[in-house]
Amino acid sequence: MELHGGNIYKLKREKGIEVLDYSANINPMGLSDRLKEAVIENLSILEKYPDPDYLEMKEVIAKHNKVEVENIVVGNGATEIMFLYAKNLKPKKVLIVSPTFAEYERALKTVNCEIDYFQLKEDEDFILNLPRLQETLDRTYDLLVVCNPNNPTGKFIDKLILNDLAVYCKNKGVSILLDEAFIEFVDGSMERSLVEYRHENVFIVRALTKFFAIPGLRLGYGITFDEKLKGKIEGNREPWSVNAIAELATKVLLEDSEYIKKSEDWIREEKRFMYEGLEQIKGIKPYVTETNFILVKLINDMKVEEFRGKMISLGVLVRDASNFNYLDNRYFRLAIKDRENNKKVLRCVEDAIR
Amino acid sequence: MELHGGNIYKLKREKGIEVLDYSANINPMGLSDRLKEAVIENLSILEKYPDPDYLEMKEVIAKHNKVEVENIVVGNGATEIMFLYAKNLKPKKVLIVSPTFAEYERALKTVNCEIDYFQLKEDEDFILNLPRLQETLDRTYDLLVVCNPNNPTGKFIDKLILNDLAVYCKNKGVSILLDEAFIEFVDGSMERSLVEYRHENVFIVRALTKFFAIPGLRLGYGITFDEKLKGKIEGNREPWSVNAIAELATKVLLEDSEYIKKSEDWIREEKRFMYEGLEQIKGIKPYVTETNFILVKLINDMKVEEFRGKMISLGVLVRDASNFNYLDNRYFRLAIKDRENNKKVLRCVEDAIR
Repeated sequence: MELHGGNIYKLKREKGIEVLDYSANINPMGLSDRLKEAVIENLSILEKYPDPDYLEMKEVIAKHNKVEVENIVVGNGATEIMFLYAKNLKPKKVLIVSPTFAEYERALKTVNCEIDYFQLKEDEDFILNLPRLQETLDRTYDLLVVCNPNNPTGKFIDKLILNDLAVYCKNKGVSILLDEAFIEFVDGSMERSLVEYRHENVFIVRALTKFFAIPGLRLGYGITFDEKLKGKIEGNREPWSVNAIAELATKVLLEDSEYIKKSEDWIREEKRFMYEGLEQIKGIKPYVTETNFILVKLINDMKVEEFRGKMISLGVLVRDASNFNYLDNRYFRLAIKDRENNKKVLRCVEDAIR
Repeated sequence: MELHGGNIYKLKREKGIEVLDYSANINPMGLSDRLKEAVIENLSILEKYPDPDYLEMKEVIAKHNKVEVENIVVGNGATEIMFLYAKNLKPKKVLIVSPTFAEYERALKTVNCEIDYFQLKEDEDFILNLPRLQETLDRTYDLLVVCNPNNPTGKFIDKLILNDLAVYCKNKGVSILLDEAFIEFVDGSMERSLVEYRHENVFIVRALTKFFAIPGLRLGYGITFDEKLKGKIEGNREPWSVNAIAELATKVLLEDSEYIKKSEDWIREEKRFMYEGLEQIKGIKPYVTETNFILVKLINDMKVEEFRGKMISLGVLVRDASNFNYLDNRYFRLAIKDRENNKKVLRCVEDAIR
């Protein structure tokens, strides 16, 4: 499995190359100054165990999402949340809307369920075909997995549509694992989340990792309105899995409205700039994105291995997207960062494609 | 379950009381200055994913233990290591040397094995009776769990004896989970570890948490010489479970020889001071300890709930040890900290016991 963000270490070790990392989708604004100050001022929190109940942290998250503390589960990154969900829901037969992030499959495989895939089709521009999905969702599935906005396609399903799907699933006895790890990058941000409908059969996964540029900190949470499931997860989780700096960061970051506002403005500008820039380049086809990364298809004769190699020699790491389900060796994914680097990357893509 | 270290938050929330925490066994030297500087200088590491292979981190740990990188597994605290070990070893029938840390049982219960306890007896001063243990270890067990030095008794089993036990177990097909989370506090420190014998059937758990006073950071590791088990664990672990600051801390702390030396000198002095101080107080019996905490028995008519309540009203939180297997409501555990606080706590114990 190609892990996002991991390859910069391997490249450095094996080839001695430092690259601009466009394979990991992290807010280019970097660490919030308020977080930096808070960490430096509060380093001594490391000398104590975190609150095993993570109560203050949950209060801030609950407020941010307009829900109650009882609806929140915290974890060492969204990954822990997904593994905990799989372990405690114990689904028998799962349908994953694909191509998508491979980690759902990995988490679900630990509980030995049967896994099927619902294909987002290229000739439908990777947009979710709801009638076709509902047809597929007969009684034999007990879990549907949806990433929204979806990684790697960048497509976003409006909450009104998702709400219909959630009701449909509820009537069929199907749970939904809804990964909203990139929701803050969508125009309208948190207002676009499904959370307000408080569906008991929908478990929402979030991370502070991407939007707040803290992948090194490990900080994810889940929102659930299913009391029984919540109880099981809390009963089975490892104590203190969230470190004290992540605990502090949650409180600081979710209230850093300046950082949030600036980031939202940046992504609104740059996702258009990047798409339009890529559209100008012959030999590739970018797909319209609603988030901070963009899926691109090579439509000349070049294969992604060759393209990726050329980009590395130009100093840029892109994400080979060929190992996503239903994609092949013509696809790659690019992060969207600040204007200066985006310009540089556009020039490199143009050079590499020739 | 009463979690170590957690109660200070509950006390503060529910009663508004700030106490001196003698329930958690943390090095009173606090955060190493070198770590503080390193974190402040390198905050931007949070903006990148950690190395998914944690290679540099493992190199430092391997060197520290005079083993190879291949022998090291890293985790989000010793807790994650224990859960990973249980999940991948999948033992059928386990014998836990008790009273001991409750987390082994919790981790093992997630894999539904049968659990028995081997009693460390008070009339044997809680010292391991090897012949009696060997008798108990017939072919029906496939895992033995030993904490060394043992929490809460403070007793340490010499590596020559443990080596005999490991060989005995190997011949019987029994694996050993050996928790050495407090080994650095034993006189002679790492030189007293079983690691040098490189037993394939012994999995050693370590944490930097206690000795380096970073319980808020979550940082543990395992040492194994069983290639197959190592492969399974690496294959099943969640990616990036160790945060980037913990990764950095490992490199800084294990090479901070000044901090290590000072801590070793402190604990050598203070464990004697604390034992001798407690021995002078009528109505209690302290047990000789080889580490940084001490088990104490109330031998007047007082019960531990009452004693603990009195101590809280005097501003000190002790660990009620009555919920450890084979102990009852006459036992409590005290951390050992710096001289000034130790003196204060001794005075409080004397006041509370009257």
